[in-house]
Amino acid sequence: MMKPLRVGIAGLGTVGGGVIKLLAQQAELITTRAGRPITVTAVSARDRTRDRGISLEGLNWHNNPLSLASDPDVDVVVELIGGSDGPAKALAEAALKAGRPLVTANKALLALHGVPLAEAAEQAGVALAYEAAVAGGIPVIKVLREGLAANRISRVAGILNGTCNYILTTMREEKRDFADVLADAQALGYAEADPSFDIDGVDAAHKLAILAGLAFGQKIDFSALHIEGIRRISALDIAFAQELGYRIKLLGIAEHTEAGISLRVHPAMVPVQKPIATVDGVFNAVLLEGDFSGPVFLQGRGAGEGPTASAVVADIIDIARNVQIPVWGTATRNLEEARVVPIARHEGAYFIRLSVVDQPGVLADVTAILRDHGISLESMLQHGRAPGEAVPIVLVTHETREDAVSTALARISALEAVLEQPALIRIEPK
Amino acid sequence: MMKPLRVGIAGLGTVGGGVIKLLAQQAELITTRAGRPITVTAVSARDRTRDRGISLEGLNWHNNPLSLASDPDVDVVVELIGGSDGPAKALAEAALKAGRPLVTANKALLALHGVPLAEAAEQAGVALAYEAAVAGGIPVIKVLREGLAANRISRVAGILNGTCNYILTTMREEKRDFADVLADAQALGYAEADPSFDIDGVDAAHKLAILAGLAFGQKIDFSALHIEGIRRISALDIAFAQELGYRIKLLGIAEHTEAGISLRVHPAMVPVQKPIATVDGVFNAVLLEGDFSGPVFLQGRGAGEGPTASAVVADIIDIARNVQIPVWGTATRNLEEARVVPIARHEGAYFIRLSVVDQPGVLADVTAILRDHGISLESMLQHGRAPGEAVPIVLVTHETREDAVSTALARISALEAVLEQPALIRIEPK
Repeated sequence: MMKPLRVGIAGLGTVGGGVIKLLAQQAELITTRAGRPITVTAVSARDRTRDRGISLEGLNWHNNPLSLASDPDVDVVVELIGGSDGPAKALAEAALKAGRPLVTANKALLALHGVPLAEAAEQAGVALAYEAAVAGGIPVIKVLREGLAANRISRVAGILNGTCNYILTTMREEKRDFADVLADAQALGYAEADPSFDIDGVDAAHKLAILAGLAFGQKIDFSALHIEGIRRISALDIAFAQELGYRIKLLGIAEHTEAGISLRVHPAMVPVQKPIATVDGVFNAVLLEGDFSGPVFLQGRGAGEGPTASAVVADIIDIARNVQIPVWGTATRNLEEARVVPIARHEGAYFIRLSVVDQPGVLADVTAILRDHGISLESMLQHGRAPGEAVPIVLVTHETREDAVSTALARISALEAVLEQPALIRIEPK
Repeated sequence: MMKPLRVGIAGLGTVGGGVIKLLAQQAELITTRAGRPITVTAVSARDRTRDRGISLEGLNWHNNPLSLASDPDVDVVVELIGGSDGPAKALAEAALKAGRPLVTANKALLALHGVPLAEAAEQAGVALAYEAAVAGGIPVIKVLREGLAANRISRVAGILNGTCNYILTTMREEKRDFADVLADAQALGYAEADPSFDIDGVDAAHKLAILAGLAFGQKIDFSALHIEGIRRISALDIAFAQELGYRIKLLGIAEHTEAGISLRVHPAMVPVQKPIATVDGVFNAVLLEGDFSGPVFLQGRGAGEGPTASAVVADIIDIARNVQIPVWGTATRNLEEARVVPIARHEGAYFIRLSVVDQPGVLADVTAILRDHGISLESMLQHGRAPGEAVPIVLVTHETREDAVSTALARISALEAVLEQPALIRIEPK
């Protein structure tokens, strides 16, 4: 029997507890698969006394997570503290500097500091693994970094945030409004008390930045991502989507185009017959387009104790098996600077919903503005009549450029008969 | 720059040509990802003069594939000859014996001789990689063997043969019969002149045997698989499936139950809302159920030059990166003997279609027989009336045991008013 791989875990929240449970419950199975036992020897968390339903007896306890990096009983450091900076970053740096492989579930850390951390890992000659940072139980990092390594990837599109997908699915199924469903999701524990990271698209954007860096071999500047969340999606938009044969999903999309790469997180209208449109509830999904493989579609649980622990332990097993893949799929010296195409130059079709006063001439004014900006319509929907009152009008454009649509919408919003800020949702794929 | 990894390829059909094209076209990209160039140095094929649209200049040519195993210019042997025995097996054995890593796309070879080959690879301390053997461009071997390595897998279910899925999809979409669509598929090159390996389920069974061995860590005796193909599926069955909210798919299913494992390839009724039901045309898909990860669903192109070459080259890149995973996910000494539950003990719901003479008393006879065998019905369909003539009757059972259904059907078939052999299609998941 080979000697055990000794693991030190920083952060004993849901995921940390899950990792300890998994390693205990599947100890025998994992020993045969990894070729050696994997044992937790040290932990660090804020509160030593909290009952986590797991035994911490016999483990080295560190009040300061940083000291895990130098614990002589630790071969691999697992960072589950979270947050892009602070103790998580300090521990990651200390572990790599000490020549210890690092496993992390921290998407913010990787999205914001992934390249310097990769350089540190290269210098130390150790693994930096982060399967759990993106899409939980779906091994999408492995699929991209290894399984599709022979391919030039042209596009990555995914449902990367389960909270948003749960809210959008519930809004559709129960015909309810955003605020109402969000409140329920918070009560059920599917959304945080401060839900902004999820519902404003930041969490999905962190994951997208990681996938894009890996897919394209580029250094991604996180501030270059276009990020919109789902706060402005209304029950009305969802009903119209249904009528037009679409589902509204919060997508993260990274595309390689001739002009550069496009990086955006926003609600999108997805045709119902596309696999990604059928992904409901808390599930995540990712579609990867490789030039030789063709489309590869992955779906599974994107969060939660079990799926995230599954990903963390897969990374630890890789380390036990001496698997060491370049952090970004290639040595950091090969990474290119990303040339990001601004959203204003996005080309695609658009769903536009206006709230207008039902009176003669409104539609003529709206369509004249669209014509002035070279925007042609594929379809138009107006239901019912209510002379003198507010009615919704839905316009679906042919493919056009985003800056043209923005300018036209600003002019349309200024029309007296247009009552609210128009809703604008991109149609994907175009 | 590290020295190149030198590849010898046996078999220059569609896949072999694709691998050579891919390695040439993406040479620079692959060098950065693999950390060293990957170069084809030697080939073997039956006909040296055939124009394959690729240059073989400067490569060592071997009339006998076996001599690739001892070519001093070859570091990795890629076996693309096909067939479970003969030259493919001889080359695989020779390569491993000579201490050369082996990459193969050969599902029959792995399904029938996978364990002794793994032992040979272990003895030599080299990799035996076979991503391309199952589901083409979908990296399902990597997902199972590495990505989900922390999980106990309870179930694997997949659409593993693109030819069958194309035929079933076309039958549904165009409301045509099997023989008719098969003839078209052959003309289009989607089905072989002798299509039996595909349409009788043997190809899917080879792939299922590999997935099951990997998922459960067991030695699979291929002859223990229950295998049915799609020859007996009629346009009528497909129409009834549609009416009942199902799609008919040829599935490969491996399940871990208390009584042992269940291994079967057969047409199945899948509820339309399940992801696997929406996989149409030549696409493949696999659903993996892990105890921590939850369900992981993968979909992509299961065959063809590009997708298969993508998988072969991913394996070669793994070897260039010094990745070496136990062939069956664990050392062969850890593999258990499989205890396979016979299909007679399968429990599930069934779709039964009878062709009966429309006359009083038939249904009473049929339902009395079902009652005698403890089989209860969930629904019954009969359309139209044609006194004295043949009409179809469809029965959907509640969950019951296969041997009860078989015995009951034998008695029902013997009734004078029952005209053809009944159609029996399992409903999945139960």
